[in-house]
Amino acid sequence: MRVRILGMGMGPHQLTGEAAQALRGCDYAVAARKGDGDGLLALRRAVCAAHGVPLVEVPDPARDRGAADYAAAVADWHAERTAAYERVLAERGGTAAFLVWGDPSLYDSTLRIVEAVAARGAVPVEYDVLPGIGAPQMLAARHRIVLHGVGGPVHVTPARRLPEAVAAGHRDIVVMLGGRHGFAELADWSVWWGANLGTDTEELVAGRVGDVLEEIGAARLRARERAGWVMDTALLRRPR
Amino acid sequence: MRVRILGMGMGPHQLTGEAAQALRGCDYAVAARKGDGDGLLALRRAVCAAHGVPLVEVPDPARDRGAADYAAAVADWHAERTAAYERVLAERGGTAAFLVWGDPSLYDSTLRIVEAVAARGAVPVEYDVLPGIGAPQMLAARHRIVLHGVGGPVHVTPARRLPEAVAAGHRDIVVMLGGRHGFAELADWSVWWGANLGTDTEELVAGRVGDVLEEIGAARLRARERAGWVMDTALLRRPR
Ligand SMILES: C[S@@+](CC[C@H](N)C(=O)[O-])C[C@H]1O[C@@H](n2cnc3c(N)ncnc32)[C@H](O)[C@@H]1O
Ligand SMILES: C[S@@+](CC[C@H](N)C(=O)[O-])C[C@H]1O[C@@H](n2cnc3c(N)ncnc32)[C@H](O)[C@@H]1O
Repeated sequence: MRVRILGMGMGPHQLTGEAAQALRGCDYAVAARKGDGDGLLALRRAVCAAHGVPLVEVPDPARDRGAADYAAAVADWHAERTAAYERVLAERGGTAAFLVWGDPSLYDSTLRIVEAVAARGAVPVEYDVLPGIGAPQMLAARHRIVLHGVGGPVHVTPARRLPEAVAAGHRDIVVMLGGRHGFAELADWSVWWGANLGTDTEELVAGRVGDVLEEIGAARLRARERAGWVMDTALLRRPR
Repeated sequence: MRVRILGMGMGPHQLTGEAAQALRGCDYAVAARKGDGDGLLALRRAVCAAHGVPLVEVPDPARDRGAADYAAAVADWHAERTAAYERVLAERGGTAAFLVWGDPSLYDSTLRIVEAVAARGAVPVEYDVLPGIGAPQMLAARHRIVLHGVGGPVHVTPARRLPEAVAAGHRDIVVMLGGRHGFAELADWSVWWGANLGTDTEELVAGRVGDVLEEIGAARLRARERAGWVMDTALLRRPR
């Protein structure tokens, strides 16, 4: 059978022509249903409805966060999740779309799941990937900026590892996965920040970090209250 | 008047739904015509034809590469280019699309040009940006990989600054703008490489750098011969 991993960008209007065509050629699409009201699931439903493809929702297995052996608990969770997708694919066969929020190459586990299903070999799977607009691109578009200095690099990092990136001397740092963790120490940097980009609860703030940190906090809360979820991305730029 | 900066991804099939709609709403599109047979111009023509929008080609001013004062020559060139676009916008008014190859946030000068036109104030310009699929996303999709380790960062750099990125200890480095400059010293690294991605002269190579460097060289020549131009991007991953 065939799996097509399709980046959907930051919403139904951001599907590329080739991804839309690929989706219409699929027998069904597959998406995870998470415990907490999943706003992205609603957007996936809208995409599937718009392209006339049924959506199969796969409940995400519960994660044993209190487990004594953390690594073993994560491995169990991955195995359960793989098995859940494998069951759906084995039952339905044909051509399945996996709709990925943003781009599949950035902080997304879909490729890992599909690779794991393929590696188990119980369901023979051929798969390909079509790219989508990722959060960094969308952030830059909304702020009408490029992500780097002239001829310079840009460093993309999870918030957890921001301190290392700052210590390494980088000038342009895109921060994903985790709010304003570590921003307070960078008062003199410039920031271009966005939450729920591309959706109707989008928030944008830009300025000197020290001046806009509170505004970002308020905007983040507002996005979460309005949407029921919040995801944010920021570009931080070192002062000269 | 209004300018819409539209990322077109790696070809006509990669325009997003919102960018296609925006393009159809423009009175005309603007693109640079470069001296050397510009393969990308043909793709821009195809996009405009497909969406029924006329394309205005702006000859790129000649660059005085032999000038004694390099900085002054570059500044002149920028000013001439800005003036050329300003003339087109002043004459035609209405809503203009600037079609950007890939994504406008990565190593592209369109935003700078439009900002410069707006700053001069001779033509009152309002502008916005819609994102497109960039070369790193497309590279990752073709190789079916994510660009970073689990929970780790990814560093995007022009080839010229690859040595710094290696010295800084980064594990995952995306190299743009400039072939295999500096790859030879990284024989034990893994590479995922692609040229002319998304076009009919696309080339892909992956493996241990030391093992595939010649193959990359041959593929690069082949792409250039077939297309008349070559652009390549690579992900380099440090050995454990
Ligand atoms: C699990 S990752 C998925 C990233 C996605 N694959 C992409 O290409 O953008 C989630 C993180 O992406 C960023 N993100 C995703 N969607 C976003 C949005 N609509 N607005 C702002 N940030 C977003 C946030 O940093 C969030 O923590
Ligand atoms: C002037 S920059 C433009 C980048 C573009 N804005 C983007 O988002 O990908 C040109 C560089 O982008 C990369 N690139 C652009 N198009 C490419 C393609 N089709 N295949 C491989 N690399 C490409 C190459 O590294 C090339 O040197």
